[in-house]
Amino acid sequence: MEHGGDLTLAIERFGGMREDWLDLSTGINPYSYRLPQEISAGAWTDLPAKAAEERLISAARHAYRVPEHLGLAAAPGTQILLSLLPLALPDGPVALVSPTYSSHRVVWTRENRPPVEISSIHAVPADAKIVVLVNPNNPDGRLVDVGSLLDISRALTARGGYLIVDEAFADVVPGASILPHLGDENIVVLRSFGKFYGLAGLRIGFLAGNKTITGKVTRMLESWCLSGPALEIGAAALRDDAFRERMTRRLAEDMADLTLALSERGLSVFGGTTLYALAGLRDAKVLHEALARRHIWTRVFDYAPTWIRFGLPGGPVNLARLSQALADAQKDL
Amino acid sequence: MEHGGDLTLAIERFGGMREDWLDLSTGINPYSYRLPQEISAGAWTDLPAKAAEERLISAARHAYRVPEHLGLAAAPGTQILLSLLPLALPDGPVALVSPTYSSHRVVWTRENRPPVEISSIHAVPADAKIVVLVNPNNPDGRLVDVGSLLDISRALTARGGYLIVDEAFADVVPGASILPHLGDENIVVLRSFGKFYGLAGLRIGFLAGNKTITGKVTRMLESWCLSGPALEIGAAALRDDAFRERMTRRLAEDMADLTLALSERGLSVFGGTTLYALAGLRDAKVLHEALARRHIWTRVFDYAPTWIRFGLPGGPVNLARLSQALADAQKDL
Repeated sequence: MEHGGDLTLAIERFGGMREDWLDLSTGINPYSYRLPQEISAGAWTDLPAKAAEERLISAARHAYRVPEHLGLAAAPGTQILLSLLPLALPDGPVALVSPTYSSHRVVWTRENRPPVEISSIHAVPADAKIVVLVNPNNPDGRLVDVGSLLDISRALTARGGYLIVDEAFADVVPGASILPHLGDENIVVLRSFGKFYGLAGLRIGFLAGNKTITGKVTRMLESWCLSGPALEIGAAALRDDAFRERMTRRLAEDMADLTLALSERGLSVFGGTTLYALAGLRDAKVLHEALARRHIWTRVFDYAPTWIRFGLPGGPVNLARLSQALADAQKDL
Repeated sequence: MEHGGDLTLAIERFGGMREDWLDLSTGINPYSYRLPQEISAGAWTDLPAKAAEERLISAARHAYRVPEHLGLAAAPGTQILLSLLPLALPDGPVALVSPTYSSHRVVWTRENRPPVEISSIHAVPADAKIVVLVNPNNPDGRLVDVGSLLDISRALTARGGYLIVDEAFADVVPGASILPHLGDENIVVLRSFGKFYGLAGLRIGFLAGNKTITGKVTRMLESWCLSGPALEIGAAALRDDAFRERMTRRLAEDMADLTLALSERGLSVFGGTTLYALAGLRDAKVLHEALARRHIWTRVFDYAPTWIRFGLPGGPVNLARLSQALADAQKDL
């Protein structure tokens, strides 16, 4: 399976050094949260203290507005959480709102439970026990409102089923998260730290919601699965409300600039969030490769040959470079 | 379950600030591998590249002398590997050579497979399908020779069983590791990075051996479960052969000094490795608490009220402090 964010393949095929490349293949914030001047020596050398993990979880509860009655598990990234969910949730048919982030299909299929792909949350089969939804969706940004999700989850809960909501990009869509509204529905929610805070290398992710499931996952993860630096930096970042507000605005402004620049080159954005823009054209792969020859790496999708996704370039210099490359690339096509 | 290495409880009960304490409750090397002057910015901000994980795994293969035909999985610490093993290994009765590191019992019991505790690897029940051994053992340092382990594993392999060898402390016992001698036996071996390199906060552990099992565990861990800094620092440390040789000698010298100091205070060391010394006395808990009142944290064991374990103090100043505290504590007793 191909993911964005790894230039190894790009460099193998199109040459250049890592520093030559402009990586727009992910939805990771290019303006990363500022690392502290110094990380405490103990964060590297000691086994992470229980108290340090509790500080991270409490900061996440604050930032994501997770009610006290819900469980909250921390992990080294959401990817491992997503992988453990099939082992923690009850048996039965699985439905996945598609197309979406490909790993969801992969992890259920691996456990011999290939999901039925449904085109919308309103098309959940009557026998589905587990429903998986990315909200806002990646790559198209489709958003389902909280009220509809609660209604659907109640029907699922009544038959012993569970709703999984992957809110990897909910940070940048105010009001999108279901977390502050959860009661005792059978819902678990994935939250990604690295995307919004631009620190994907730290590896921090969360699972919030139904306590039975978050408890099972916590036990499977066992002790000390997050690094000392991650616990320290993550807790500080998640407590920084001013950063969150400022960054939400800045990303929106940058996305407006990117959308305009793309449209000036004839590319119309038809989906996304403020961390990624999804545009359509007759043959996305041709443009993807033309940009790659100019060492700009974008994301295309096997299942949708007309889609191309752009992450934020991270400032006017990179945006101008993209814009010029699009102009040059179009001469090639 | 209580583990060493977390001063939170110690401070709650016996006061003091973190920096007042001398933590001897773990077997973590006090002379940690030197952190690089600078960690590359991308290690924090980017999703870890596949190539970076491959560099870490290749360095581990070198350091641990893992033959090419064996699998090797990297994880954020061995604790999560230990927790996933019951999900990756076949059904059937489990035997655990005891007493030993308590988490092994916990993770199997959680999966409704409480292990039979056996007193030696030579007492494996005829129906055992999974046998778990820590080698050298923690806390007593007992070592089983490679030849015996291979014999036992062949008998297990013949009935579709598996031997798990936890080599968390094998770095400091030259010749202890079974890894260079493995053929196609059903064996998996856990290796801990943080203990020998003194960087437990980084969270790096490995599972080596039978490819079916390492493959299953790799898939369960999914992508990017190690942090960027861990991949970078871990690969450099595991390639540093000079450090490994120098440190093995230094730890042996320090342990000689610790053993002498303990014996001068009437404590005889009857087990351990060069990272921890196990001593016996009539009531270990009384000494443990007398030392704790002097802000020195040691490890005692519910199942063996006469045992007390000391990690290395990390140099003459701390050793003198321990020695003085032992003299003072004995006046209290």
